Amino acid sequence: MYAAPSIQRLLDELEKLPGVGPKSAQRIAYWILNSSSSDALRLADAITDVKQHVHFCKRCFNYAQDELCEICASEKRDASVICVVSEPRDIPPIERTGVFSGTYHVLGGALSPLEGIGPDALHVTELLARLNDPGIKEVILATNPNVEGETTASYLARLIAPTGVKVTRLASGLPVGGDLEFADEVTLGRAIESRRVL
Amino acid sequence: MYAAPSIQRLLDELEKLPGVGPKSAQRIAYWILNSSSSDALRLADAITDVKQHVHFCKRCFNYAQDELCEICASEKRDASVICVVSEPRDIPPIERTGVFSGTYHVLGGALSPLEGIGPDALHVTELLARLNDPGIKEVILATNPNVEGETTASYLARLIAPTGVKVTRLASGLPVGGDLEFADEVTLGRAIESRRVL
Repeated sequence: MYAAPSIQRLLDELEKLPGVGPKSAQRIAYWILNSSSSDALRLADAITDVKQHVHFCKRCFNYAQDELCEICASEKRDASVICVVSEPRDIPPIERTGVFSGTYHVLGGALSPLEGIGPDALHVTELLARLNDPGIKEVILATNPNVEGETTASYLARLIAPTGVKVTRLASGLPVGGDLEFADEVTLGRAIESRRVL
Repeated sequence: MYAAPSIQRLLDELEKLPGVGPKSAQRIAYWILNSSSSDALRLADAITDVKQHVHFCKRCFNYAQDELCEICASEKRDASVICVVSEPRDIPPIERTGVFSGTYHVLGGALSPLEGIGPDALHVTELLARLNDPGIKEVILATNPNVEGETTASYLARLIAPTGVKVTRLASGLPVGGDLEFADEVTLGRAIESRRVL
């Protein structure tokens, strides 16, 4: 396809983004070409800024702009509860629920023998170091409910057991508002096993 | 939702892009955060570069990096045929067909009395000036087959008629590979009217 070199370069870079194919890349490129220079430069600046100023929180490995992330630095958060997640992107959905006011620990992945990801590739040692603080009362294992996430949760549960800290796991079951008819067998089976007394 | 200020700013800018909602913005933002700094900066540079180096071709008003766009500057193109389009984004699809080797003229929009877009808002004067060249043999009106595009095409056809230059319009009809059953009545009606002798 014909395109001026600068436009072709922009198209190539845009197509690398997740969920952006050739058609979307072209729409975005024309939007950038048509927009005011200041609009386009604000986007370019935001990208540069995020790469320059965002790094990992020293304590929990969430994204942070200061030494500690906003959650670790906040006095309103309950530091006695640590919610362990695989990736920083798992934190916003938990925050949106509004039911959790503790702190987090980001592992940076999940155990996957097939992909060669062992405990050394994750921030496990740093998690155990945090548990030396006698103030820690509970660790919630919020890794994904898939093979890698479950493996990681079991591994961590065994590792943390000797410290005496309470270890919990997110419940599996039917999605709220979902239909029993359309639930997959594994989820429905788990919902029956984990049935609650009313 | 919680996010570091730099990340929030990036999310805000990404959500302004066409076809990018909050979920896609988040996916792209995490991709940028996870990618190497050089990958992300290449995207930022490409955006800045396109705004700095791309402007309108002096002759045809397509996007260009030099005084003339690559098509106007090319010696391989047949300058005696001018294909008139509404926007620069209409050129790549025509180029992809591989059947056109002439040059273009970008109007910068289409006539729309409702939106107050008259001939003065389009590059009509510049088109007529190009037709003063006795070498011009044909003008193909390739505005969109919708109300504004048809209005613009009729207007230009009347305006160009006195110059004696041949004026043609893109054919309307059934899409190749399409199903007669699913064609809308207007398109099918046009296809019947414009039937060809075999």
